[in-house]
Amino acid sequence: MKIAIAQINPVIGDFEYNSSRIKHYAGMARARSCDLVVFSELVISGYPPRDLLEKKDFVEANLSCLSRLVDEIRGIGVICGFVDKNPVDEGKPLYNSAALFENGEILHRVNKRLLPTYDVFDESRYFEAGTECMAYEYKGEKIGITICEDAWNDKDIIKKRIYHINPVEMMVKGGAGLLINISASPFNVGKKELRRDLFGTIAGKNKVSFIFSNQVGGNDGILFDGTSAAFDRQGNIKALARDFEEDMIFYDSDGQTGVSYKENIHPVSGPGVEPVLKALIMGTRDYVVKCGFSKVVLGLSGGIDSALTAFIAAQALGPENVLSVFMPSRYTSADNYEDTKKLADNIGTGFEVIPVDGVFKEFIRLLSPSFREDAPDITEQNIQARIRGTILMALSNRQGRLLLSTGNKSELAVGYCTLYGDMNGGLAVISDIPKTVVYDLADFINREKEIIPSRIIEKAPSAELKPDQTDQDDLPPYEILDSILKGYIEDLKGAEELVESGFDPKLVVNVISRVDRNEYKRHQAAPGLKVTTKAFGYGRRYPLAQRYIQSIYNK
Amino acid sequence: MKIAIAQINPVIGDFEYNSSRIKHYAGMARARSCDLVVFSELVISGYPPRDLLEKKDFVEANLSCLSRLVDEIRGIGVICGFVDKNPVDEGKPLYNSAALFENGEILHRVNKRLLPTYDVFDESRYFEAGTECMAYEYKGEKIGITICEDAWNDKDIIKKRIYHINPVEMMVKGGAGLLINISASPFNVGKKELRRDLFGTIAGKNKVSFIFSNQVGGNDGILFDGTSAAFDRQGNIKALARDFEEDMIFYDSDGQTGVSYKENIHPVSGPGVEPVLKALIMGTRDYVVKCGFSKVVLGLSGGIDSALTAFIAAQALGPENVLSVFMPSRYTSADNYEDTKKLADNIGTGFEVIPVDGVFKEFIRLLSPSFREDAPDITEQNIQARIRGTILMALSNRQGRLLLSTGNKSELAVGYCTLYGDMNGGLAVISDIPKTVVYDLADFINREKEIIPSRIIEKAPSAELKPDQTDQDDLPPYEILDSILKGYIEDLKGAEELVESGFDPKLVVNVISRVDRNEYKRHQAAPGLKVTTKAFGYGRRYPLAQRYIQSIYNK
Repeated sequence: MKIAIAQINPVIGDFEYNSSRIKHYAGMARARSCDLVVFSELVISGYPPRDLLEKKDFVEANLSCLSRLVDEIRGIGVICGFVDKNPVDEGKPLYNSAALFENGEILHRVNKRLLPTYDVFDESRYFEAGTECMAYEYKGEKIGITICEDAWNDKDIIKKRIYHINPVEMMVKGGAGLLINISASPFNVGKKELRRDLFGTIAGKNKVSFIFSNQVGGNDGILFDGTSAAFDRQGNIKALARDFEEDMIFYDSDGQTGVSYKENIHPVSGPGVEPVLKALIMGTRDYVVKCGFSKVVLGLSGGIDSALTAFIAAQALGPENVLSVFMPSRYTSADNYEDTKKLADNIGTGFEVIPVDGVFKEFIRLLSPSFREDAPDITEQNIQARIRGTILMALSNRQGRLLLSTGNKSELAVGYCTLYGDMNGGLAVISDIPKTVVYDLADFINREKEIIPSRIIEKAPSAELKPDQTDQDDLPPYEILDSILKGYIEDLKGAEELVESGFDPKLVVNVISRVDRNEYKRHQAAPGLKVTTKAFGYGRRYPLAQRYIQSIYNK
Repeated sequence: MKIAIAQINPVIGDFEYNSSRIKHYAGMARARSCDLVVFSELVISGYPPRDLLEKKDFVEANLSCLSRLVDEIRGIGVICGFVDKNPVDEGKPLYNSAALFENGEILHRVNKRLLPTYDVFDESRYFEAGTECMAYEYKGEKIGITICEDAWNDKDIIKKRIYHINPVEMMVKGGAGLLINISASPFNVGKKELRRDLFGTIAGKNKVSFIFSNQVGGNDGILFDGTSAAFDRQGNIKALARDFEEDMIFYDSDGQTGVSYKENIHPVSGPGVEPVLKALIMGTRDYVVKCGFSKVVLGLSGGIDSALTAFIAAQALGPENVLSVFMPSRYTSADNYEDTKKLADNIGTGFEVIPVDGVFKEFIRLLSPSFREDAPDITEQNIQARIRGTILMALSNRQGRLLLSTGNKSELAVGYCTLYGDMNGGLAVISDIPKTVVYDLADFINREKEIIPSRIIEKAPSAELKPDQTDQDDLPPYEILDSILKGYIEDLKGAEELVESGFDPKLVVNVISRVDRNEYKRHQAAPGLKVTTKAFGYGRRYPLAQRYIQSIYNK
């Protein structure tokens, strides 16, 4: 059987657009004489539709769309994901389903059995779990269709198994020789390698072909990298789709070797930070465009975070659609004008200079009766950040530009940022990028020629909200901070474990209590693009009014 | 058996404090010669702990706390909720559990079977579902212990059953004569009546006593009203705890009638808006205090929303802890100074006046090169709102006051509010109160004497951000707006259903498209206090970058 794997970028809820992409790719697959074309999970609605699933008319629109596709796509078998209704009046009302249809008829339906309900996933909120794990005869082969998580319970690869059944095993027992997995499997660093390991192992040890058709594109903060693939019965990868863009690849499942198409291993990002940069560029483009914008604005401080964000924005949307704004105050060092100007020139974005001291003085004059003779503190620093935030929002409002915020993950973690100030924005482009990785990305961007001026990379990081301030006055060195933060946030280590792994107890307590205390700021943060295993935002849900104190605090 | 039902207000993660409350109430119950004292669901950690449950040391701290309580509370049986570990290395790692212990020994453990995973609940994210539904012999009676949702699958009351088992039915079949339900069941309008109906029906039809021990207090935006209760074998309510405060009630399960304690039906709020007001006062107090604050600040505009918020804050924290700030601009009507001053005097809050025109002029001067000759639009209005937001945050920062935002649900729904402006704040006190209910609450507050000046109630609502502006320039009358919003947001009706129920199609499309378009503002809103069946925030999860268009749009 000649199979096309179509990796498309659906827009959540845009049934018309998504259908047109599906028909386009099905047509191309038919033109290549394929027997079957495989699309991704919930491709009709886009993944994840979240609480749109609670709207009856949304579910009906998705079903009508499926009916039209069944009717309109002829001459090739199609597997695609959709939302089905649970016909039984007990249990959750929906299924996360796949249909195999051909020439006007749905031949086979399956419901997802393993429903991820952790991190950014809420599938048990909406869906009843499927129970049937059968192999199905189609065009002379026995196929088993799984939906994303269904394939993620292999005991040789998955250390902690949170489900009680393994659909893959049951399908293989049922005689399946070809396993097809339709997915909306998000990107994070290392995920591509993990998938290849998992799917290759499943194929090899069960002597089955394995097809992986993944969604690509960004939906809010969740980024799907694509890299759809096909593995032969020895577990060798025989086809691989591009990462971070739409693509189609082919696989012939008839032969024992599974080879019949050439040039099927498409180029994907190398190791290191390249895939992270591609993910951020795709995520920024998709968020801005899917929200209906084409232009963005951001503040350039002269620091590395905003420089990186400006570069990503220009790559995502074209430099002509990016406005960079430099907003100096009395505390801004003289170099910064030159550095930001040079950066904007190198990248090609628009550039405006709007000094903030006049407004700042007026605020201080106004507030002096309330402030009395108090010594200046964080309050004055926040006022400056909020003036800048207000200026950027004014440009956003007047010019119809989405504002990008530029804070990195390390700052956001410890609250080294101003709510309603530099946190303002519709998208927090690098809020899942630790400061140390910000430097790695800048070096990668400059690998062939200097795009981000070297002085921006080399200067000591500073918020420049008071005289001679540098980040290191308030924070430990970023290498150490980022290690503690990774342990605490991504690896869920407690204070004692962090101390045991070699960090200074006082420092650990200081850092993690800052993380906890600043939960309220992150609650009001813009959505950020997720590239690690645990990003702030949707997948990390902490109470705000809480008093849990890590045991080491009291020692 | 003499049973005490202890209704306490735990703080999330404050094991020391929660233990001390548990011991205090257990001691009081013992002093009243009770055989058993029943606490609420997850009382040791407070409900909901959310992702704190993913921290190993949090779970261990909760188990140590349980061990200490088992060891320290003697001479009375205790039922209390806690987090247990799943001993099996497959499935979710935790259980939502209850222990029955006495004199140093845990006699019985049960795991919650029905795990709510909808609206504000995410229990399948953390917990494995229990399976055992046994009745258990204790002090001569057969008891069945259920945890909150476990009792919510009765086919006579629950129309749409989302679970496949009914633990109550199984326990009754197993011979239980006394059902004990420990809960963290949140408030919404009508919930108390629904619970009474459900529990009374369960007790009466099965001829069992039914004990309901509920959490009280606010945790972030989720408000628990208490109203713990006991029902006899005829389904009559025999004991009822107060709403919105800690309390203890008693029940004797030995006799057929179940009566032995007097004065056991404690006063609770009447019908109408009284419980809503109590809920908001409790929620505000708990959020502010559990976050470690004692003082708050808010902006008074001269309108009814901020007046209501100021009253609630004063009731919650004492007027001496509330600072009201009046920030007039050129568009502020002359009456508003008098009205806000009178309101602040009536309530007794501090009062400051800080005019915003000076800063506004400076912003406009600064931005004029970018704005060129464009006619003023929403941009200028937003700048004013953001100046006010910045002033309030400056007072918050300098004086250590939590800022309360004052927007109502109707405004927040259609985006009639400024992000980083009037939306600023740590808590959105009335963000789940439709404008029409804001008026009802004001009338209720004024039922005996004028606290909110009548002119504030009677004036046409206005954002006062441009000359002669009133809300009704931009919005339909609030009675109609609120009806459409309730249908769309709470009842999940689609555009066609709304039109069928009698609303003008153009108006429906206008309103619901505004709701959809402003999802991004609500994503960055402060947490709000939930009093309806569907509040913005944690329990309503919509994608931001989406293009789902209700079918009627195209007709």
